[in-house]
Amino acid sequence: MEHRQSVEEQCRAARAAARHLDKAGSARKQQALENMALALDAGRVAIAEANAHDLAAAERGGLSGPKLDRLRLSDKVIGEMMAGLREVATLPDPVGAIDGMWTRPNGLQVGRMRIPLGVIGIIYESRPNVTVDAAALCIKAGNAVILRGGSEAFQSNRCLAQILQQALDQAGLPATAVQLIQTTDRAAVLELLQMEQYIDVMIPRGGEELIRFVAEHARMPVLKHYKGVCHIYVDYEADPDMATAICVNAKAQRPGVCNAMETLLVHQDLAASWLPKAARALREKGVELRGCERTCRVLPDCLPAVEADWSTEYLDLILSIRIVDDLDQAIAHIARYSSDHTEAIITRNLPRARRFLQEVQSSLVLVNASTRFNDGFQLGLGAEIGISTSRLHAFGPMGVNELTTTKFIAIGDGQIRT
Amino acid sequence: MEHRQSVEEQCRAARAAARHLDKAGSARKQQALENMALALDAGRVAIAEANAHDLAAAERGGLSGPKLDRLRLSDKVIGEMMAGLREVATLPDPVGAIDGMWTRPNGLQVGRMRIPLGVIGIIYESRPNVTVDAAALCIKAGNAVILRGGSEAFQSNRCLAQILQQALDQAGLPATAVQLIQTTDRAAVLELLQMEQYIDVMIPRGGEELIRFVAEHARMPVLKHYKGVCHIYVDYEADPDMATAICVNAKAQRPGVCNAMETLLVHQDLAASWLPKAARALREKGVELRGCERTCRVLPDCLPAVEADWSTEYLDLILSIRIVDDLDQAIAHIARYSSDHTEAIITRNLPRARRFLQEVQSSLVLVNASTRFNDGFQLGLGAEIGISTSRLHAFGPMGVNELTTTKFIAIGDGQIRT
Repeated sequence: MEHRQSVEEQCRAARAAARHLDKAGSARKQQALENMALALDAGRVAIAEANAHDLAAAERGGLSGPKLDRLRLSDKVIGEMMAGLREVATLPDPVGAIDGMWTRPNGLQVGRMRIPLGVIGIIYESRPNVTVDAAALCIKAGNAVILRGGSEAFQSNRCLAQILQQALDQAGLPATAVQLIQTTDRAAVLELLQMEQYIDVMIPRGGEELIRFVAEHARMPVLKHYKGVCHIYVDYEADPDMATAICVNAKAQRPGVCNAMETLLVHQDLAASWLPKAARALREKGVELRGCERTCRVLPDCLPAVEADWSTEYLDLILSIRIVDDLDQAIAHIARYSSDHTEAIITRNLPRARRFLQEVQSSLVLVNASTRFNDGFQLGLGAEIGISTSRLHAFGPMGVNELTTTKFIAIGDGQIRT
Repeated sequence: MEHRQSVEEQCRAARAAARHLDKAGSARKQQALENMALALDAGRVAIAEANAHDLAAAERGGLSGPKLDRLRLSDKVIGEMMAGLREVATLPDPVGAIDGMWTRPNGLQVGRMRIPLGVIGIIYESRPNVTVDAAALCIKAGNAVILRGGSEAFQSNRCLAQILQQALDQAGLPATAVQLIQTTDRAAVLELLQMEQYIDVMIPRGGEELIRFVAEHARMPVLKHYKGVCHIYVDYEADPDMATAICVNAKAQRPGVCNAMETLLVHQDLAASWLPKAARALREKGVELRGCERTCRVLPDCLPAVEADWSTEYLDLILSIRIVDDLDQAIAHIARYSSDHTEAIITRNLPRARRFLQEVQSSLVLVNASTRFNDGFQLGLGAEIGISTSRLHAFGPMGVNELTTTKFIAIGDGQIRT
């Protein structure tokens, strides 16, 4: 029972902190974020020590390669966290902004004022830098945040959270505005997901299993994306070199991320001309190709794709290819198999570009650009806390604005209803 | 098992209909809504017959007075539904609107395009006119809708839904874009709440019990409000006559609704001067007063308020009154007891009006106007499907725009990530 107290007490403290942050003002929040960057710099020794504990334990547990690397808080990663903090510090403060104001016939002036969401919960896996990145965005938007990181990064996260709390305190803001759950016990996650009276929204970041677990057990709203099965459709009026360059970029520049292309849809008129050249360029980057029947006839050394390929997020140098009759078939394929994440058309034809933009309902729809642009920074939001593939509240990358909501305000001179 | 099929089949048909509606275009949707108004007019006999069945059954079941009245589809109510349809028809179409477009340093043009949410579920209680009002807003925003009305209005709802479906069909839109659950079995509600793969958002409308049931069992996001415990704070620099007029309006003009005032907070300097006069005006309207200790000393015939009064939504001619030391105490009282619905300050003092607007975090915060204005039509949204008191997606009255979301669009000329 001691443990239940603890999670609930942390949540209650976060709720109280949120009420302060709410009216903290832009300058103080900016100061807190700048303090955080300085404190990280000053805390390098302590961070390295805590991180070494986690790394040693992870190695003993058999972790190696890229998984171990993701846990490492190198000087470069600390530098990136500091740069991120300073970047978020200089973003415009969304809180208090009035999105339009209008006057009703009775003279009542009505508008919408942007306000923080309140308390945000973040449940994430190995990378400890999320502790800093997520906290920065939440604080900037005037929210308190409860963090629950992966157990393998526990010491690192605890050290980072303490540093952030000191920086908040030095800026005159409640240290409890950023809190890390103080146990690696898995039951604490379930407990956290029940705290709907204290937490306004939960954001899971990590693998599909974690996200499904959060979505299933959370009592509060969840902002999430499961996976990115992203498509590019190459129309017969595409610029062929541009199409190849975009496909290679979308597949091979960083294959392990959610906005990488997983399925290429090719207009039948390009089957004999463009497709073999594009396949060669993809193979030069080490991409394994899996094609529909028609594709396999054109690319004889292509593996046959099975039904499961069309809904698989490879996160690897593998690409499924389907030759389609026309735009309608491409849009129908996307409607059936898409994860609503990112889809692109390559074409010089305006009517078909317009149709694709209007009829494909994914969080980002592109014309003549790489799917890799589905990212808050790339799209100009300044930074992102995640990409939502569900439609409520936010659809696509979520920046500082998406961590706020609006309330209505109305100013009158005695208006009553008749 | 036959029955499970049926709810799921309806949901699947709604999902398919949503894909059509999505690209239906403004003119066709507007035509459908106008057809609906004409069809209601032409269907008066059938509606009266169906409604008579429901009314007779309800009377046999012991329903009477206002509860029976709410079930009645009089000529006046039909006229109101028709007017509502025509009003919604003429609202601007939110779908396809691009909310801002900006250019990134690499030349990529990025914007946000408004799109429908998809399939909306509405679970509601007795008033059968909700069938028409809710369907109209959902269709206008390009969504399909699954309706589940109260069992006591089942025949009326079925008749109305059929009329709406014929009108859709005549406009060349899928009739399945508006569907009523075809059973009064309560298990069907639970079934509906599991259909997260088909329904994007659930909106419950009715009493607190219904809303809690939906919030607890829904697998999809829920837009809801539980209750309205609305406050008015009368500052010592209020215009006394304006304060009285607003308080009487907020409490007594229609006491049974969620935006009526339930608690009056009065600055101590007005205790002896303004409060007795205001109390007299309220009593003249039949309002029962329940006051804090200080209030009872000033208003000797006032009942003492108990702790529970401060969080009660009376929905009746009852008002709790508390005398406070200052604005801070008023804001603290609201933060503790408010249901985040609607709060107002009456004052001529600008700094305190600004503080109240910024620090009170309810869905509508007013200065010098009645709480009764928290209503989509009154605030200029054209119409409303409900008032959300949770902060995700929509906070406050939800109009046609709140039944949509935005996707990102990006238009380039070959941009790739480096």
